[in-house]
Amino acid sequence: MKSAIISIGTELLMGQIVDTNAVFLAQGLNGLGIDVLYRYTVGDNDGRLAEVLELAFRDCDLVVTTGGLGPTEDDMTKETVARFMGDHLIPHPETLESLRRVAAERKAGGRGFSENNFRQADVPSRAVVFPTNVGTAPGFALSNDDKTKMIICMPGPPREMTDMFRRRVRPFLAARQTDVIYYQTLREFGIGESMVEEKLLDLIDAQTDPTIATYAKTAECTIRVASKRRTEAEAREAVQNMCDVIRERLWDAVYSDQDEEMVFVVGRKLIDRHISISCAESMTGGLFAARLTDVPGISEVFDRGLVTYTEKAKIDELGVSEKTLASETAVSPNVARQMADGLARKTGSDICVTVTGIAGPGGGTPEKPVGLFYVGCAFQGKTIVKKVDTRHQERDFNRAFAVLTMLDVVNRLLDGREVRGGDSEMTVSSVEIR
Amino acid sequence: MKSAIISIGTELLMGQIVDTNAVFLAQGLNGLGIDVLYRYTVGDNDGRLAEVLELAFRDCDLVVTTGGLGPTEDDMTKETVARFMGDHLIPHPETLESLRRVAAERKAGGRGFSENNFRQADVPSRAVVFPTNVGTAPGFALSNDDKTKMIICMPGPPREMTDMFRRRVRPFLAARQTDVIYYQTLREFGIGESMVEEKLLDLIDAQTDPTIATYAKTAECTIRVASKRRTEAEAREAVQNMCDVIRERLWDAVYSDQDEEMVFVVGRKLIDRHISISCAESMTGGLFAARLTDVPGISEVFDRGLVTYTEKAKIDELGVSEKTLASETAVSPNVARQMADGLARKTGSDICVTVTGIAGPGGGTPEKPVGLFYVGCAFQGKTIVKKVDTRHQERDFNRAFAVLTMLDVVNRLLDGREVRGGDSEMTVSSVEIR
Repeated sequence: MKSAIISIGTELLMGQIVDTNAVFLAQGLNGLGIDVLYRYTVGDNDGRLAEVLELAFRDCDLVVTTGGLGPTEDDMTKETVARFMGDHLIPHPETLESLRRVAAERKAGGRGFSENNFRQADVPSRAVVFPTNVGTAPGFALSNDDKTKMIICMPGPPREMTDMFRRRVRPFLAARQTDVIYYQTLREFGIGESMVEEKLLDLIDAQTDPTIATYAKTAECTIRVASKRRTEAEAREAVQNMCDVIRERLWDAVYSDQDEEMVFVVGRKLIDRHISISCAESMTGGLFAARLTDVPGISEVFDRGLVTYTEKAKIDELGVSEKTLASETAVSPNVARQMADGLARKTGSDICVTVTGIAGPGGGTPEKPVGLFYVGCAFQGKTIVKKVDTRHQERDFNRAFAVLTMLDVVNRLLDGREVRGGDSEMTVSSVEIR
Repeated sequence: MKSAIISIGTELLMGQIVDTNAVFLAQGLNGLGIDVLYRYTVGDNDGRLAEVLELAFRDCDLVVTTGGLGPTEDDMTKETVARFMGDHLIPHPETLESLRRVAAERKAGGRGFSENNFRQADVPSRAVVFPTNVGTAPGFALSNDDKTKMIICMPGPPREMTDMFRRRVRPFLAARQTDVIYYQTLREFGIGESMVEEKLLDLIDAQTDPTIATYAKTAECTIRVASKRRTEAEAREAVQNMCDVIRERLWDAVYSDQDEEMVFVVGRKLIDRHISISCAESMTGGLFAARLTDVPGISEVFDRGLVTYTEKAKIDELGVSEKTLASETAVSPNVARQMADGLARKTGSDICVTVTGIAGPGGGTPEKPVGLFYVGCAFQGKTIVKKVDTRHQERDFNRAFAVLTMLDVVNRLLDGREVRGGDSEMTVSSVEIR
């Protein structure tokens, strides 16, 4: 199956927002074995959308659109698509019903509900409707009479679109594919993307099936291994064998083979094993705590977090020594260690993890450059300190890298694995155990 | 002038990278008063690029492409574009010269220089060439014989493209524009997008120039007002008059007329006025501190943050009363207030802002539903508490909304404005002053 993605919305043409939907969909469609030949962005304009649909269907049998399903005047996707496919709009009873419930609730609460909102229930008469679990606008799939062309329309807000794709659209499309695609996504931390590619180069060059693709994320890398076979069992076996080979090449840097973010991997272990945790952050300014509290159920084990931004806060809250701060500065292994020890005394949490460093862009010196940070961690009576120099200048990158390093240290301690650095290209690491 | 943007590169269709070029160019072209009617992404494929060029020129007189100017086999932009415009490629002498210098340097350093690299010097014979200051591939502008169509081609790597656009392409295009565009983007918090549209409906319906467009962000809304006139002074006046009308309709919900995020508006006021701040968070788990520490220079005024997730942490760190926690639960106005008072005692910061609430998806009850939260703020001897019920179920949304509410409360106190709710559609608010 060959496809095109159309993002609809004048705001996308003004450069006000980055179109993350198209990236998500390109990955999702490729993951189903559906080639993406084009991506288009058009404004909320009936005639131009129709022109683009015409061009897309010259080469493609599937078009996926996002946006323009909302309640306002400029949302015209459904009208254009229905006309293009020789159909017309009718209200979808279940959606109408749920909109009426929302309206009644709002009115009961003394709030307004614009009549325009009911337009969201209109769908093409022949469409397969995809109900929404997040917003109020449903999506749908619509084929032409001889079933040679199909359009799938989804809402534009990324939260609504991604949820609908995962729950409704992916299974719907997967059921129409003859070959079975199976894939697994490994995630690793500690080895840069170019080094990962180097380590896997012969495998990547020789690939036919399974295919291997690496994607760089902020301070991380994912490796997607996919196979397209006649049966799922065949595809699964091929993928798993390849994953075993890759894991071996990347030492123990791979922390998930289910494309799960590190914070969820670590959070689940803490919850399952009833291990309590507290944190004290300087350069990350609360990001570690904010990420950790993304994990559902973490309140069972997360006691507290401290953002000790000033020296005074480090002294007051954690008992860091004024002398150490004066002689070694706040960005030093001893301060990271004292922060962890102080936090352990104060909270009694099983794991106390800390960070101090220089996020940039300012504040660096030749001895303590931007990107240098120390992670401290007290666990089972020992306190370790890990030193990292990212050699990056960007604040966001350095803060994200520091949060991942904190998680990586905790993950390794929980597994009883060695705490050490990744490749020397990105980090310089040392571990001190007291 | 009407334009289309074409991003060229198969990697863009695999979902491997986010196309930031298109966003940058859309802003840049709009800023010049050039409407962007379409954005396309095509793979490195000669036939498909030609098809897209044909479609684009049906409605547009300018097409801007990025990508496909490199030295490798799949870089075919120049050949396709030259053929499409009835031209052919010739080597550009200055570029050839500089490539020879690079080659000599590399060889002197014992490194290789592939002969393919010289292909980068080829440009269409009638083109206006844009030399590069960053990479090795030049860009160019090429018109057809009767000067009704123009294509501008730039390299794909964002650093090369943005530099070339700023130095060469923008001045080149600006010299050809007769009208001037001026725009301003207002940001507001507290009134939902549909309510904003309702309040501005007559203005939006009647718009010719200036134009008005609203865009929903998470728990916020931006309003873009643009005018295209013969002189900048005229355009500016038209925009500012319209902005005044809009501000009046939206009470004081507008917090920036420069498209600046609230955290930067608040952060700058704190830094400029040397007002120190600390925070204590429960439902937001550190997000407020993490956002605030995105502001450059905030370390001047941000003392510390506490993430008091457990009841014990609230008691230990902030002196919240055990009795209040038992009788009113952690999500109550009194706990928000006691957190603020305790934080003020502990830190002596000028502003102490706190939050306690239910982010969801679990943990709600009929009396204390998901989305309910209380923001406390101690400032100048008074402590106020604001109650909000977002009526949303999504954890991320509720956490983001709570962070914005904390910022909004601080912003209003700093301005000496009333702290109250926005529209009743999204929030139910009460303010208690002690």
